[in-house]
Amino acid sequence: MLTLFHAPGACSLASCIALEETGAEFEVTNVSFADGEQHKADYLRLNPKGRVPALVVEEKATESGILTETPAILYYIAQRFPDAKLAPHGNDFALAQMQSFNSFLCSTVHVAHAHKLRGARWANEQNSLDDMRAKVPENMSALFTMIEETYLGQPWVLGEQYSISDTYLYTIARWLEGDGVDITTFPHVNAHFKRMEDRPAVQRALRH
Amino acid sequence: MLTLFHAPGACSLASCIALEETGAEFEVTNVSFADGEQHKADYLRLNPKGRVPALVVEEKATESGILTETPAILYYIAQRFPDAKLAPHGNDFALAQMQSFNSFLCSTVHVAHAHKLRGARWANEQNSLDDMRAKVPENMSALFTMIEETYLGQPWVLGEQYSISDTYLYTIARWLEGDGVDITTFPHVNAHFKRMEDRPAVQRALRH
Ligand SMILES: N[C@@H](CCC(=O)N[C@@H](CS)C(=O)NCC(=O)O)C(=O)O
Ligand SMILES: N[C@@H](CCC(=O)N[C@@H](CS)C(=O)NCC(=O)O)C(=O)O
Repeated sequence: MLTLFHAPGACSLASCIALEETGAEFEVTNVSFADGEQHKADYLRLNPKGRVPALVVEEKATESGILTETPAILYYIAQRFPDAKLAPHGNDFALAQMQSFNSFLCSTVHVAHAHKLRGARWANEQNSLDDMRAKVPENMSALFTMIEETYLGQPWVLGEQYSISDTYLYTIARWLEGDGVDITTFPHVNAHFKRMEDRPAVQRALRH
Repeated sequence: MLTLFHAPGACSLASCIALEETGAEFEVTNVSFADGEQHKADYLRLNPKGRVPALVVEEKATESGILTETPAILYYIAQRFPDAKLAPHGNDFALAQMQSFNSFLCSTVHVAHAHKLRGARWANEQNSLDDMRAKVPENMSALFTMIEETYLGQPWVLGEQYSISDTYLYTIARWLEGDGVDITTFPHVNAHFKRMEDRPAVQRALRH
């Protein structure tokens, strides 16, 4: 059994879409950020990081436990359900490009966005938090310019093949409006976004 | 041919160690941070991100290009040289745990450290940069406490199997002293660090 710990709107949406794409059975448990559930003892026992996503895998003893980190969860889903063709299995270089894209979203783009509401992770004073927050639109614009011009294929991130990178890019692109960045400034990203919204798996994932 | 763009002391050391572990032929090109080479036009043409590591792969047409992002480069090396046994190939769940560890180092631990010298990525005012810098020891301590207590196996990150996660943890643990954190506070991390320093591949990598 697979159970995804998820918060609507959070980066865990990428894993939720990927699971929906596979057609497999899975459960979703919502973690209420409004109630600070991610920082309460029950959740911390499960995931000491106090974040979503977390994927609980209950299978044979050797394959049971909890997985965290979006790029790792996404690739686990792609590997475990190869028929869903969510990664370029068998092509090491293309696979590495996919992992590179996901790692960039995780370590750079997501982190740039997190300086809007989670600045207290890295600084204490209110002035610093305001300063960080003010820089978010500029940083997200610069990073999406790089994605638009350098990293985004057509029609999908990797070109012809739809993959877990598409679920992840869409998830983060949904944050642009709240970050004060107009997605239509990036025509390819915007077209990708619309293509994603047409997918039944995306529509199902958004209902969790 | 494989060419690693590297800066001594930077996170690219992890990829350098992994390459040394494989026994394969590769070249290292040093990028001088002192001269700001990573932000100059020549390097940006190669890697628009303006960072190291970058791995240039020149093989058959389908497998030529540049790879960026430590977790992606590390896994590419592990996949391409399976005899070096740098990843738990064939065990999807163990592999996902490894990728999760690497993603955590990349998106959370490395990023926490980067607020010491690279705060200008996320804020403009000198006060904010000072505030960020002051919080680095506390953040790195908290993250290494989590690594020590939850994520670090014995004798290697994944337990019995040495992997690319070990090269990455060692690389980031080398930053602790400069971050004002005493590594001996974390006995398992410290023992791991010493085990790594005994490896010929690590010693060779440090000479690049
Ligand atoms: N590197 C992690 C980051 C996870 C993360 O930051 N999740 C956010 C939601 S987008 C979270 O749980 N934040 C809650 C908090 O910081 O309290 C990943 O990619 O999975
Ligand atoms: N997410 C990237 C981060 C790469 C990175 O930040 N590299 C640093 C060295 S540790 C760098 O090149 N910094 C140069 C700069 O910011 O100018 C990775 O893991 O490869």
